[in-house]
Amino acid sequence: MPEPSLDVLAIGNAIVDVLSPADDALLETEGLAKGSMRLVDAEEATRLYGRMGPGREASGGSAANTAAGVAALGGRAGFVGQVADDQLGEVFAHDIRALGVAFDTPFAGPEVPTARCLVLVTPDAQRTMSTFLGAAQHLPASAIDPERIGQAGILYLEGYLWDPAAPRAAMRNAIGAARTAGRRVAFSLSDTFCVERHRGDFLGLIERGEVDVLFANEAEAKSLVQAEDLESAVLAIAPKVPLLVVTRGEAGALAVEGGIRHEAPAEPVVEVVDTTGAGDLFAAGFLAGLAQGRPVAQCLRMGAIAAAEVISHYGARPEADLRALVAEQLEGAAPAA
Amino acid sequence: MPEPSLDVLAIGNAIVDVLSPADDALLETEGLAKGSMRLVDAEEATRLYGRMGPGREASGGSAANTAAGVAALGGRAGFVGQVADDQLGEVFAHDIRALGVAFDTPFAGPEVPTARCLVLVTPDAQRTMSTFLGAAQHLPASAIDPERIGQAGILYLEGYLWDPAAPRAAMRNAIGAARTAGRRVAFSLSDTFCVERHRGDFLGLIERGEVDVLFANEAEAKSLVQAEDLESAVLAIAPKVPLLVVTRGEAGALAVEGGIRHEAPAEPVVEVVDTTGAGDLFAAGFLAGLAQGRPVAQCLRMGAIAAAEVISHYGARPEADLRALVAEQLEGAAPAA
Repeated sequence: MPEPSLDVLAIGNAIVDVLSPADDALLETEGLAKGSMRLVDAEEATRLYGRMGPGREASGGSAANTAAGVAALGGRAGFVGQVADDQLGEVFAHDIRALGVAFDTPFAGPEVPTARCLVLVTPDAQRTMSTFLGAAQHLPASAIDPERIGQAGILYLEGYLWDPAAPRAAMRNAIGAARTAGRRVAFSLSDTFCVERHRGDFLGLIERGEVDVLFANEAEAKSLVQAEDLESAVLAIAPKVPLLVVTRGEAGALAVEGGIRHEAPAEPVVEVVDTTGAGDLFAAGFLAGLAQGRPVAQCLRMGAIAAAEVISHYGARPEADLRALVAEQLEGAAPAA
Repeated sequence: MPEPSLDVLAIGNAIVDVLSPADDALLETEGLAKGSMRLVDAEEATRLYGRMGPGREASGGSAANTAAGVAALGGRAGFVGQVADDQLGEVFAHDIRALGVAFDTPFAGPEVPTARCLVLVTPDAQRTMSTFLGAAQHLPASAIDPERIGQAGILYLEGYLWDPAAPRAAMRNAIGAARTAGRRVAFSLSDTFCVERHRGDFLGLIERGEVDVLFANEAEAKSLVQAEDLESAVLAIAPKVPLLVVTRGEAGALAVEGGIRHEAPAEPVVEVVDTTGAGDLFAAGFLAGLAQGRPVAQCLRMGAIAAAEVISHYGARPEADLRALVAEQLEGAAPAA
């Protein structure tokens, strides 16, 4: 098996985020569950946008944020996702390439616009998202080049992309290509509502051994196996997957590999400004560590460091020098194998 | 003369800013003078964008920022400017309306895209701007409704808009309409390069008595009358205009009205993050004070407070509650007449 030319190739929704501060009253009036992500059509997106305050646009998308984080950590990252040939598509492509992520999915025509995610950030730094999938939901199976997949050490997929049919088929192809090439497949459950929509499919993937690394937060893990508490969920899932990673916000994160459990505390943060991207950047840190051949305990630390950086400012992509942060925080740790 | 239904009606370039951190080396390679604004065509905008790091998009435009600031201070503000019927035009219109600014300039077709300003923010918080004027330069004279102009207590114009021919004609019409209605005209010199391009026109406006309030920073004031130092510039300009306001960055600001000079220090700022919008928000604070009938010394303080807020974060529009800040900082001051 040749050496991979990419550390992580991520496939996900290519989305531009519109961040706007909001108060709890707006969530209540709109009937939005705090911290959730829901899908909306163009009409609803327009209506809600009209009720939002002034926004800041920044490229986002869960797996795209993870790819950006891997690159910021010095890893070789690629991203596959569909944007349209419009202004927001141009912004998305510029930003991810400027971060050093390989991105060459051809633009779709401008008829269906680039996806956008309306992110309401409440004073408690929680984000509540309404996503108009637009062009992202039309990622064709043809965008998946099996050769390209085979060149990446880790294929990373977001559960969100399971919603629309075309990208779901593309992701199944990608999983097949990665397995054929002997590469690892990492999968994020993304969101509890997403798990509810696709529980059977997600469990199927895991039980057929098609996922090597599973990322979930506490609520997603419980939802997947419909467990009452975290420990029951971990006991139910861990035996089915080679490496399970569960993030727990302020309570840190845990990983179970081959029956051995590792835990890491959250990194201290002076002020939590906006939790958008916390899970995405945790995955970035963890995967970057994995690609460097680090032990699981160090991968957890790297995830925690990357997540702490992204929640200390607005927006879902890193602003500080993540590589320097990791070098500083992990100093004294054994170098990568 | 009926009571005005708007405090300030601003006319300017309707622009979406793309902010990106940059180092001094990039400015040097690109031959850009730090702190300047230059106009670029679509091709140059695309080339420079390709060399920039990942960006954050936020609505901007000098006079539009001022209108946003007036609204944030509790004033009744309106804005006239041209955007295209495209995604960035939609973003611009949403943001300015969400701030409570009346904006009803009809969208132009999507053939010429909405203006964007590439803002390179260096670690010293200075911003260097390359503006692609796009649709903004096609603001037609028909966008100026004399009745609307007559309803605003103060008409505020940015010198930047003097560059393209169509908006220049529109602004001349607007000045005529304001004078006919007995309203005040405020004018910002915008930028030293702008003054160099239009010195004759700007001096003509002032000498014909068409400007009641002139805003300039130190460099612009010196450039206008080609003076060696600030004091000479003030002596040369002040007799020609009822109210001259000169901002001096950290050195504060001064105003001369009817031969009487007022000065105010800059408000202290914990950390200067990005000076984009400092002059625009100073003008907003000053004009909001003027509209409230406050004495010039208090208008200067209000300008300083609004400018201090906007330079303490990324982006050119206020994030904090400016009205509360002014109430707090000016507490004990005489209430508005």
